[in-house]
Amino acid sequence: MATRVDTKIEEAQIHQLLEDWGKAVDAKDIEGVMACYAPGIVAFDAMPPLRCVGAEAYRKNWELGFEMCDGHGEFETRDMNLAVGGDVAFCHRLNHMTGTDPDGKEFDCWIRWTVCFQKMHGKWLIAHEHISAPIDMETNQGRMDLKP
Amino acid sequence: MATRVDTKIEEAQIHQLLEDWGKAVDAKDIEGVMACYAPGIVAFDAMPPLRCVGAEAYRKNWELGFEMCDGHGEFETRDMNLAVGGDVAFCHRLNHMTGTDPDGKEFDCWIRWTVCFQKMHGKWLIAHEHISAPIDMETNQGRMDLKP
Repeated sequence: MATRVDTKIEEAQIHQLLEDWGKAVDAKDIEGVMACYAPGIVAFDAMPPLRCVGAEAYRKNWELGFEMCDGHGEFETRDMNLAVGGDVAFCHRLNHMTGTDPDGKEFDCWIRWTVCFQKMHGKWLIAHEHISAPIDMETNQGRMDLKP
Repeated sequence: MATRVDTKIEEAQIHQLLEDWGKAVDAKDIEGVMACYAPGIVAFDAMPPLRCVGAEAYRKNWELGFEMCDGHGEFETRDMNLAVGGDVAFCHRLNHMTGTDPDGKEFDCWIRWTVCFQKMHGKWLIAHEHISAPIDMETNQGRMDLKP
């Protein structure tokens, strides 16, 4: 059974991974982002396709995402929960993105973010990521405008 | 350290929980669905709000969902992955829903489904659920029509 100290060490390693991921996203450093993912990651992204299987497939979405957000941006997070058990962990939080797109149009949206981790060969990696906004069931519009 | 046999037992308990959840959803049995959730569940549902904090808040979404799907329906799942470590686990899969709504209109959609579990007082419960479809970033339309 893992001790309380062991769990604190694992949690600290995952917090470091999340910090590395966040810095890479801010810097639009595609290699830095991809270094956080397991080769076999299955990702449910905010935009199509339905799912990306494997890091190479998911990389294409990140490249497109960085192109679409090629303006000035700020990134804020809140309401994070992290649970760690053995070599498996999950975390969920809200990510707030504000700024201007390449055409100078302002954006301000909150996104739901779930990340699942596995420790592989002694290193925590993101094995699954799910990013979304709710959809209005009557109008079928994405609700990127909702605030927490 | 958990043995292989221990992990198999935990996996079997989670598969049973998922089966119970599926049967309760099919039967539109709100008490049965809610019995699968931890009291403190944080849910990111396919429809608004941005997030539901706690079982009572999430129950309202389920009640509304059951009203909206009050016709004949079929439920199919595929591409499930489950990882268990100690008293934490996560699972993701695609859920396919087909049928007719209360007005007789046909629906046929694939939804991404991520579920995170914690073992509490000897019992596995769903501590976090994330359900979504991708959103087209140009039109802001929900893409409930995508096929795997």
